[in-house]
Amino acid sequence: MPEKIKLGILGGGGDSLIGVLHRVAAHMYDSYEITGAVFNPDHAQSLEFARELGISTDRIYPDFDTLIAEETKLPESERIQVCSIQTPNFLHYPMAKKLLENGFHVICEKPMTTTYEEAKTLRDLHEKSGKVFTVTHTYTGYPMVRQMREMIKAGALGKIHKVDARYYQGWINPIIHDKEKRNSVWRLDPKKAGISSCMGDIGVHAFNMVEFTTGLKIKSLLCDFNYLYDDNVMDVDGTVLIRMDDHVKGVIRASQVATGEENGLAITIYGEKAGFRWEQERPNFLYLLSDTEPVRVYKPGHAYNSELSLDGTKLPAGHPEGIFDAMGNIYRGVAKAIRGQKYNDGEFPTMTDGVRGLNFVEATVASHKSGNTWVDLD
Amino acid sequence: MPEKIKLGILGGGGDSLIGVLHRVAAHMYDSYEITGAVFNPDHAQSLEFARELGISTDRIYPDFDTLIAEETKLPESERIQVCSIQTPNFLHYPMAKKLLENGFHVICEKPMTTTYEEAKTLRDLHEKSGKVFTVTHTYTGYPMVRQMREMIKAGALGKIHKVDARYYQGWINPIIHDKEKRNSVWRLDPKKAGISSCMGDIGVHAFNMVEFTTGLKIKSLLCDFNYLYDDNVMDVDGTVLIRMDDHVKGVIRASQVATGEENGLAITIYGEKAGFRWEQERPNFLYLLSDTEPVRVYKPGHAYNSELSLDGTKLPAGHPEGIFDAMGNIYRGVAKAIRGQKYNDGEFPTMTDGVRGLNFVEATVASHKSGNTWVDLD
Amino acid sequence: MPEKIKLGILGGGGDSLIGVLHRVAAHMYDSYEITGAVFNPDHAQSLEFARELGISTDRIYPDFDTLIAEETKLPESERIQVCSIQTPNFLHYPMAKKLLENGFHVICEKPMTTTYEEAKTLRDLHEKSGKVFTVTHTYTGYPMVRQMREMIKAGALGKIHKVDARYYQGWINPIIHDKEKRNSVWRLDPKKAGISSCMGDIGVHAFNMVEFTTGLKIKSLLCDFNYLYDDNVMDVDGTVLIRMDDHVKGVIRASQVATGEENGLAITIYGEKAGFRWEQERPNFLYLLSDTEPVRVYKPGHAYNSELSLDGTKLPAGHPEGIFDAMGNIYRGVAKAIRGQKYNDGEFPTMTDGVRGLNFVEATVASHKSGNTWVDLD
Amino acid sequence: MPEKIKLGILGGGGDSLIGVLHRVAAHMYDSYEITGAVFNPDHAQSLEFARELGISTDRIYPDFDTLIAEETKLPESERIQVCSIQTPNFLHYPMAKKLLENGFHVICEKPMTTTYEEAKTLRDLHEKSGKVFTVTHTYTGYPMVRQMREMIKAGALGKIHKVDARYYQGWINPIIHDKEKRNSVWRLDPKKAGISSCMGDIGVHAFNMVEFTTGLKIKSLLCDFNYLYDDNVMDVDGTVLIRMDDHVKGVIRASQVATGEENGLAITIYGEKAGFRWEQERPNFLYLLSDTEPVRVYKPGHAYNSELSLDGTKLPAGHPEGIFDAMGNIYRGVAKAIRGQKYNDGEFPTMTDGVRGLNFVEATVASHKSGNTWVDLD
Repeated sequence: MPEKIKLGILGGGGDSLIGVLHRVAAHMYDSYEITGAVFNPDHAQSLEFARELGISTDRIYPDFDTLIAEETKLPESERIQVCSIQTPNFLHYPMAKKLLENGFHVICEKPMTTTYEEAKTLRDLHEKSGKVFTVTHTYTGYPMVRQMREMIKAGALGKIHKVDARYYQGWINPIIHDKEKRNSVWRLDPKKAGISSCMGDIGVHAFNMVEFTTGLKIKSLLCDFNYLYDDNVMDVDGTVLIRMDDHVKGVIRASQVATGEENGLAITIYGEKAGFRWEQERPNFLYLLSDTEPVRVYKPGHAYNSELSLDGTKLPAGHPEGIFDAMGNIYRGVAKAIRGQKYNDGEFPTMTDGVRGLNFVEATVASHKSGNTWVDLD
Repeated sequence: MPEKIKLGILGGGGDSLIGVLHRVAAHMYDSYEITGAVFNPDHAQSLEFARELGISTDRIYPDFDTLIAEETKLPESERIQVCSIQTPNFLHYPMAKKLLENGFHVICEKPMTTTYEEAKTLRDLHEKSGKVFTVTHTYTGYPMVRQMREMIKAGALGKIHKVDARYYQGWINPIIHDKEKRNSVWRLDPKKAGISSCMGDIGVHAFNMVEFTTGLKIKSLLCDFNYLYDDNVMDVDGTVLIRMDDHVKGVIRASQVATGEENGLAITIYGEKAGFRWEQERPNFLYLLSDTEPVRVYKPGHAYNSELSLDGTKLPAGHPEGIFDAMGNIYRGVAKAIRGQKYNDGEFPTMTDGVRGLNFVEATVASHKSGNTWVDLD
Repeated sequence: MPEKIKLGILGGGGDSLIGVLHRVAAHMYDSYEITGAVFNPDHAQSLEFARELGISTDRIYPDFDTLIAEETKLPESERIQVCSIQTPNFLHYPMAKKLLENGFHVICEKPMTTTYEEAKTLRDLHEKSGKVFTVTHTYTGYPMVRQMREMIKAGALGKIHKVDARYYQGWINPIIHDKEKRNSVWRLDPKKAGISSCMGDIGVHAFNMVEFTTGLKIKSLLCDFNYLYDDNVMDVDGTVLIRMDDHVKGVIRASQVATGEENGLAITIYGEKAGFRWEQERPNFLYLLSDTEPVRVYKPGHAYNSELSLDGTKLPAGHPEGIFDAMGNIYRGVAKAIRGQKYNDGEFPTMTDGVRGLNFVEATVASHKSGNTWVDLD
Repeated sequence: MPEKIKLGILGGGGDSLIGVLHRVAAHMYDSYEITGAVFNPDHAQSLEFARELGISTDRIYPDFDTLIAEETKLPESERIQVCSIQTPNFLHYPMAKKLLENGFHVICEKPMTTTYEEAKTLRDLHEKSGKVFTVTHTYTGYPMVRQMREMIKAGALGKIHKVDARYYQGWINPIIHDKEKRNSVWRLDPKKAGISSCMGDIGVHAFNMVEFTTGLKIKSLLCDFNYLYDDNVMDVDGTVLIRMDDHVKGVIRASQVATGEENGLAITIYGEKAGFRWEQERPNFLYLLSDTEPVRVYKPGHAYNSELSLDGTKLPAGHPEGIFDAMGNIYRGVAKAIRGQKYNDGEFPTMTDGVRGLNFVEATVASHKSGNTWVDLD
């Protein structure tokens, strides 16, 4: 096994949930070591957090620019190789941009940027850079999602005819139904949260899941948002009609006011020969539906699974793995790419996924604002 | 217990599946006796079928008009009281019309008519008639559907914010994907099947379930159909964006090419306080979702259920009842109405449900044909 | 179709739940007509009930002996052909005996008799009689139970190695935990309820399910009961270790104090090649388990099912049928046998099932009383 | 946060599945650093593995005795504090013994020892040592298992009446059914695997789950094993009748020939007021059963859960965590104990669990060998 990859962390300090997720994932396959970081805008807090993690404080920098400046002075063999961006959304783009410009690989939390324009700029930059880039659509790391992708690619469904994906949550309810809260929280303030709440935060995961598993591209969409209250200007719910190639249609549903739903990402895909059903909250069960055969329930760790799926399962069948393991699988794929090893292109979401996501979100907003008309994606 | 109600049957002869369903349902609570019938356009076959059923052949008429003519000659105490229409769709309207005009109660298979115009005519006639009329949206007869309706009425969800219903099937796949079959089958021939296949046949059940359980009315809709093939002119798939009162939105999804789905009617309803989830293929489990409490699973036969739900359960909890029992519950409600007994207005779908259904179907077609614009319902 | 079979009913009057179940089942396939009955020990009530059901009161007899006496006077073509025994348990044996002695076919509620000795006497009598006899282990009528039986017979599991069945209920809890109630209720009084409560009432269904589906015979058993309270002398819970042919072992679990369980009959069967799992409360889902293949979920109504299973499904896949339909299937099988038509020996439980059941119940009591030793079945 | 705990690893090198599980778990809450190890009997391989993990090779010792000898020479502040034993079973006891004798805390894989005698010796030693000791019954680390324990302790079920646990697997099938394999594999060789295969390897987990969740002690048991083949001398299947305090009975079922089962640990507990159902393969769903209320489904991460449960959940509700997270929770509890912090006694299984487990396994063997008689536990 090669040496550990030198990992820099941007954000994710203190009680950050996303921070824990990334650190555990990075460690899972013993491929990374945290070499440097700016965990927190406050340098003292960053240093303190590093001490808590038991990481040397030598390369805990006061800010991002200093990290870049100092690391690039180091000989290549000592330098941080990849940075993981876990900061607030508006910093993703400038950080990712500067990292690519300075020769670092990038692991970027979602959303990749705040606008489609930025996303395209980043893509162009990335193309020239030759660096590894992933945007962490974590759910693609589940073994059974990977199995869907591989089986669809191998023709298990035949020609696809219909796709139906949803991401329903209910946790925003207490905020949206309280007039004061909904007018003060950053999530529902377009200046802080960008142009979309529900579609930008969760709908885009459903969109990504559709394209990741089917291999098809959404050509155009028509969207209707719900704001629920006249004084609310951010979407907290929305339904998107989609059209793909060659008579394929479908629907993407997203809601932040779906009371009692927790993290309800799910997808069903119907093809000429069979269908697939998968739900994020029961990630280890994949249902293959047929008009003429008994339903087949695929589970991780069995030899009948594809290589891509099995690569993302650490223990024998029947030992449930979860969201940390899914993120671990993405980090594992990125490690392979950084090391120049062979990897399956389904091992981590790419720049293309990031760019498509922003294209999708802006198109939903455009469609809604135009009075629910069809808007093409690029 | 009063005397049995005299029931006439129109259609439903031979191997008719719908015929079995209605006959068993009619018998379930010992409230009806089959007094007369036109099971089949061929009188000899009608007579033969009556003999198979062990019914007297005296009042097995050669045709519908004769049935009306002869029965109306009989003294009221001997006459058929209610007719159950189980004929091909295009006969529902003329039969229902003539029945009401001649003073019979009517149990009518779905669709009630083939056009919205006819539906309204029938409604006007019915209003004047004072007769009992039901259109058999069978799924409303399930105890847990009734429980949803009653709990929503009692405020269990608080103000409703979002509704999501679907009806997915896959059985038409072998027909639609075969060029010869899809161009010859009556279902996909607008001259025979009316203006809509998927939405008219199954989408309308999802629509009815939404209005039946929530008590809300859909105000306007936007629909996109899929025909899958250029030479097919009937919808085999469609998604409908819906808007209800007061910022309530939702989606109705229907498909006949959802490979591997059997009879996949399902509904979720999200309100201020809680949500409901129910699926037709697991009809005895009703899920009450909450952001702050454990999910509650309601099952039939328990004392915690409403009177309307318990009335539709014959055995103690844990003895699964199914679709025959659901239809039986509708027949039971109709019997109460015919006898002038007190009944809950959720015991059977009414003329209003029938009219609304046609309004819905025509609106989906209009919306699709207009390029997916919003169309108001009356 | 031949003429309807003339059915006599013994018991099942008034609000009897078992009465509804049998009447609906008898009607389901239009094979029976209720010709005579003793619904109730009180003749006036019997007559009143007949009027409620809309049955002629001519052959509603004052008591069972009169029914036998009068019916046997009638010419064979007019006489009741089969009687359905739905009376309290202690009457099953004398009624069944006299019916067979007088040339009637018999449909007998469970338990067939109150002792194993009686059961054997009845068996001998039945052998000589040439009449059709069934004991209504209703659960064998479910299409997916029949599918298990047929697939096991066809070798789907290979050699069976282990069987695990249970029947758990909780409804007796309020009685058993109340000292006064548990000492007064007839169910827990051995003089009235026979030698076993839990094993005799529900454990025996699990036992029957094991032998019905596997085709194997239980050779010996070891049982431990629980009475829960020192002043209670009837088993309300018990576990039975079982041994079958050739190194096959298993366990049968039964409880009436399994709080929150409704009608929790379930079975799993493990063989050399595959396993089966089925639960009564989700009767339309049958799981085929494999060490190397995805789980397969079988559902009723599909062409992949056996003839025996399909024969017990009236509507296309996806239309849930339940316990009434299961009983209907048993009545349908009995009708075939009475008419001398060809039928599958899995269409209804036989005298052998009844005899085996009593053998089982007495063996469990003997094993428990002997200090939990092994007791052979015949 | 205090300094990281210095962790020594014994075994778990190379592709060891248990090794990955422990390393990821140890890292999950940033509480441990791997300071020294004997990963492998071959020192060169141990060193190579350390390099792969990116761990300093300074304290990778050639063997266990050297590790003890060298570490005890170091000043206390530098010394390994706790060792995690992941070696083959027969080494657990001697290693744990020597570790305790030399002042180390111990994390010990299951089984703690190979005999009950050894277990008691270890217990005595541990009592005197004042050190922290855990045996990794990993499944107790799941948030919903912890929730069961806490709710039972708080009286949610009332007095418990019945317990039913199982652990079913099928993976040994290809070995047991092949004569050559079953006579050569170490697992079925009593000299290598100890006195029990099925009960010792998996039945003991079900036993532990019973005592961990209910807080009750099993007083006596009666067991029947199945060897399946005459030439096989190790149990591959077994059922255990159990008796606890005060009229509480139950059953523990274990099988390694339950074809198609993966890691089928499950438990149901029935009490006066309610019941619990939980399954290892769907670990994030806990069912509270009631005779009079809807079933309640508890899920991790909600505020309605106990502190002990919430402490073992890193992300908000709806983000599935799995077996790695369960083991991580045990390591977290051990870290608290080592650091002298306050912890709930349900945070990790203790020496008592280990001793009880061996007592159980030996009692099942004794019961089976004595002809299935009752055997008391201490």
